[in-house]
Amino acid sequence: MKNTKWYIEETTENEIILHSLKEIIYAGSSPYQRIEVIRTGNMGKCLFLDGKIQSSELDEFIYHEALVHPAMFLSNRPDRVLIAGGGEGATVREVLKHPVSEVIMVDLDEEVVKICKKILPEWNNGAFDDPRVKVIIDDARAYLEKIEDYFDVIIIDLPEPTEGGPSYLLYTKEFYEKIYRALKNDGIMVTQATSTSINNLLVFVSIVRTIKEVFPYVKPYIANIPSFFAPWGFVLASKSINPDRINLKEKLSKFNGFLKFFDYDTYIGMFSLPKYIKEAIKERGVIIRDNSPLSFY
Amino acid sequence: MKNTKWYIEETTENEIILHSLKEIIYAGSSPYQRIEVIRTGNMGKCLFLDGKIQSSELDEFIYHEALVHPAMFLSNRPDRVLIAGGGEGATVREVLKHPVSEVIMVDLDEEVVKICKKILPEWNNGAFDDPRVKVIIDDARAYLEKIEDYFDVIIIDLPEPTEGGPSYLLYTKEFYEKIYRALKNDGIMVTQATSTSINNLLVFVSIVRTIKEVFPYVKPYIANIPSFFAPWGFVLASKSINPDRINLKEKLSKFNGFLKFFDYDTYIGMFSLPKYIKEAIKERGVIIRDNSPLSFY
Amino acid sequence: MKNTKWYIEETTENEIILHSLKEIIYAGSSPYQRIEVIRTGNMGKCLFLDGKIQSSELDEFIYHEALVHPAMFLSNRPDRVLIAGGGEGATVREVLKHPVSEVIMVDLDEEVVKICKKILPEWNNGAFDDPRVKVIIDDARAYLEKIEDYFDVIIIDLPEPTEGGPSYLLYTKEFYEKIYRALKNDGIMVTQATSTSINNLLVFVSIVRTIKEVFPYVKPYIANIPSFFAPWGFVLASKSINPDRINLKEKLSKFNGFLKFFDYDTYIGMFSLPKYIKEAIKERGVIIRDNSPLSFY
Amino acid sequence: MKNTKWYIEETTENEIILHSLKEIIYAGSSPYQRIEVIRTGNMGKCLFLDGKIQSSELDEFIYHEALVHPAMFLSNRPDRVLIAGGGEGATVREVLKHPVSEVIMVDLDEEVVKICKKILPEWNNGAFDDPRVKVIIDDARAYLEKIEDYFDVIIIDLPEPTEGGPSYLLYTKEFYEKIYRALKNDGIMVTQATSTSINNLLVFVSIVRTIKEVFPYVKPYIANIPSFFAPWGFVLASKSINPDRINLKEKLSKFNGFLKFFDYDTYIGMFSLPKYIKEAIKERGVIIRDNSPLSFY
Repeated sequence: MKNTKWYIEETTENEIILHSLKEIIYAGSSPYQRIEVIRTGNMGKCLFLDGKIQSSELDEFIYHEALVHPAMFLSNRPDRVLIAGGGEGATVREVLKHPVSEVIMVDLDEEVVKICKKILPEWNNGAFDDPRVKVIIDDARAYLEKIEDYFDVIIIDLPEPTEGGPSYLLYTKEFYEKIYRALKNDGIMVTQATSTSINNLLVFVSIVRTIKEVFPYVKPYIANIPSFFAPWGFVLASKSINPDRINLKEKLSKFNGFLKFFDYDTYIGMFSLPKYIKEAIKERGVIIRDNSPLSFY
Repeated sequence: MKNTKWYIEETTENEIILHSLKEIIYAGSSPYQRIEVIRTGNMGKCLFLDGKIQSSELDEFIYHEALVHPAMFLSNRPDRVLIAGGGEGATVREVLKHPVSEVIMVDLDEEVVKICKKILPEWNNGAFDDPRVKVIIDDARAYLEKIEDYFDVIIIDLPEPTEGGPSYLLYTKEFYEKIYRALKNDGIMVTQATSTSINNLLVFVSIVRTIKEVFPYVKPYIANIPSFFAPWGFVLASKSINPDRINLKEKLSKFNGFLKFFDYDTYIGMFSLPKYIKEAIKERGVIIRDNSPLSFY
Repeated sequence: MKNTKWYIEETTENEIILHSLKEIIYAGSSPYQRIEVIRTGNMGKCLFLDGKIQSSELDEFIYHEALVHPAMFLSNRPDRVLIAGGGEGATVREVLKHPVSEVIMVDLDEEVVKICKKILPEWNNGAFDDPRVKVIIDDARAYLEKIEDYFDVIIIDLPEPTEGGPSYLLYTKEFYEKIYRALKNDGIMVTQATSTSINNLLVFVSIVRTIKEVFPYVKPYIANIPSFFAPWGFVLASKSINPDRINLKEKLSKFNGFLKFFDYDTYIGMFSLPKYIKEAIKERGVIIRDNSPLSFY
Repeated sequence: MKNTKWYIEETTENEIILHSLKEIIYAGSSPYQRIEVIRTGNMGKCLFLDGKIQSSELDEFIYHEALVHPAMFLSNRPDRVLIAGGGEGATVREVLKHPVSEVIMVDLDEEVVKICKKILPEWNNGAFDDPRVKVIIDDARAYLEKIEDYFDVIIIDLPEPTEGGPSYLLYTKEFYEKIYRALKNDGIMVTQATSTSINNLLVFVSIVRTIKEVFPYVKPYIANIPSFFAPWGFVLASKSINPDRINLKEKLSKFNGFLKFFDYDTYIGMFSLPKYIKEAIKERGVIIRDNSPLSFY
């Protein structure tokens, strides 16, 4: 073993990833979670919350472009955008590549927002200073109570719903109903939806199934995030827009925001799911409710 | 930590994966490599060669369907097939779902073939007893010396070309020239082509570039193999068939071999590469030659 | 890394030991604890309870001779002996090298006793079949309620008092009072007393201090148990025998039970504590009571 | 697992220790070895050379007192002292507690000396500024070529003789012959002598046997160094002084240098070896020569 210093990430009960550790840039805790910024040997600067990687210098562009652009491009007019979570600021950064007039970001953990602003400025790239952006420190669910028929796009960028963690109630049917209400009639939501590893599909397909209880048009998709060591799931949903009827080829070819991951091919690739995952979506999964949440790792 | 027993896989110098270990089914060595069959907590039975996972009970179907079927479906007439490597027998199993008349499998390591036959019978599913199948214990490169204009499809299913390992010279331009010669005029080859992780792209794009030196039509593609913890690369190449001109939709819909991973969507998804990988293929990579091999991990 | 299979033992919050794993001989659970018998690369067969090593083929003789013989040799007449715990049977084996008439072994976990009998027969070496030995499956504390002025030697051979584990209340002042009552007037007790690592001394010195609350003569001692990766503490105590006034040289030279670890030099060495440990014993430690147990790791 | 950041130390092929890692104070390389200073969760600041712990803030006093004081107290007149190795400066610090007139320290690796001076000033405690101390950057063996009948005490404080490491030839019969020649007639040498773990005794007993080929009076002894996770061996040897005939009780009681580990009890304890180690010393071990060194891990 050439390296001696390692960051140990327990991804599931049965899998542990060791990242070679080059520098401890920050290690601390907020009232909600442990926060660590580590320079690793192959991913550069990485943000870990409660011991789980959130994004890395090397491939955060993949996660954030995959999360943001499908919904933004499929929207008729992505004008008013809500981001639930997104403390690193990279989701806002991507959203601002579109002609929005207002971006509200609601994150529970002020500490995460502060540390990312200070230590990971490349992540947000000045987005927090844009006059269209407003950051609210609050629980996204509490914030949504007051909102109705307002947003064009809602982007849910939260850690996995680990038991006892801060995101527990932001993956339930009751939460998605609030999202539904907060969206305009042609609004679109998208959420990160955990790993789609074959030994771990239940959470992903349950999120899909739960959202289908609330929205008429639901499209799961997958992107490879190397630093997550797994194909990563996302779910897009809309009240009235059917993504299958929309061809983004022309819209994407005219887009002049600089993108590194997302293009037309990538879009097609992400939405073309392998057979066994399509079948798991059809056959498996449970509805996640406030009072019967999935027992996640 | 709930589990106490782990299999430690050093995937790169900067990354180590721990798989929870439930049973040591076999542990030994051949003259060529260490061979271990381990039951892990989330992947079931797994074959490791020289400490690197080769395939797992849970998702070997993904790897083997991804490796075999694109070439077999794109072939005009997949009649005579060569498999270089493939000791587990699962590649033969997939090949036999097509109307072949002859399958030659050339594997260096008799021990691997024997152990897989005995311990992993589900992998080959009786394929070794099929009268169309012939197993030759030899170096694939030595075997190819004698072959010209014979095979319709050549499938290269070998471990990564680690320095000092047995597959070192089976990823070079000189080797691909022998493949070219051994194929019929409308022949197709496909090779596994290592991880396409963003921090590890050089090997993949160098394999693509090297094959492009030899074949006119070259198509890289990617499938997620969860047990490999990375998006996995493959390269398909042909002397005269241009995959871009072929629509497999109808052919696939009529296929009656039972597949779990591969279907038309999956095919489209695998061949739709993300923007940054397409650009890496255009701009980066070196030509791998016998006397200037890549310095792999 | 030459080895791929490891047993991971979290010894403290800040230290983890990996033992190379050659064979999983047994892995299961009783109502009280996880039980694993593992063949490791450098210690041979090892018994782990709740993920902590209890004894190893290679050096269990050190632990068991260190635990048993000082008390047995210092006793005026080691006739009736109680072993609390000791499920492996090796403590009984050592006790039977002395001229005892009765050995009672009280162990909570029938499963451990059964598995050790079956899988680790060298540990007990037939001791369970000796007519002088009686095994009682019970909580040692409950058993002691009924006993008064009976035993010559009481040997406490229990796992560390981890919170929630089965040995929690067998290291408190209240428990030692029961031991005191159960011993004859010249009786001697001995207990294993956890690691004496400099970063971990508090538990050891608290056990010493707690026993000093109950017994007039208390002698801590230390032996190196390589498979425990630490110098290991023991505490011997007596109602009326002062070990400092006894010279075992002659008694030991006449002893004809075969011993591998213990002799006169070893005895002197074990009872000659380093300066900083003697000072820690004088100055530090708390009294462990049923209602204020130490918060062990 | 509460900690996420770990230092991984491969102590032997079959054992790995993980130390929780709180801060990377220094990480670099000299021409001779990798040098790392790490703050760990339970040992404070630790120096690692080539991935092996050399000393820790918490218990370096144990190692250095154990190494230095037996030889210094047994010497008739510890006036001129040579230290081979000892780059941290703690060995010099202990030597200076005795009435020496000259201390020569010969260390190969200037980088280690510099870094320890700067980062671990508590280790040397100003010893390098003492006018009696002279530091020579050289190979200890080359230095000794020129010396004859000069030193009262020679202290060998070097890393383990791993193959290819810098200390390879400083544990051979030929080296000890140079030590013999460099000592005065009543001179004493002492060397650290690796782990005495039962599964690893061969190196220790071979060092003992090799020194017995050269010196008439040889006394092995053992101290527990918690951060080494093993009972640690030392060997003391003399041309004419028989330690068994010397009673240090009075000398030690008068000593006014402040010691934390070493006292009369500790001395007795260290030199009272367990039976199985005494027997291993009698029966096992090979003579280490320049041209037939032990194949250490």
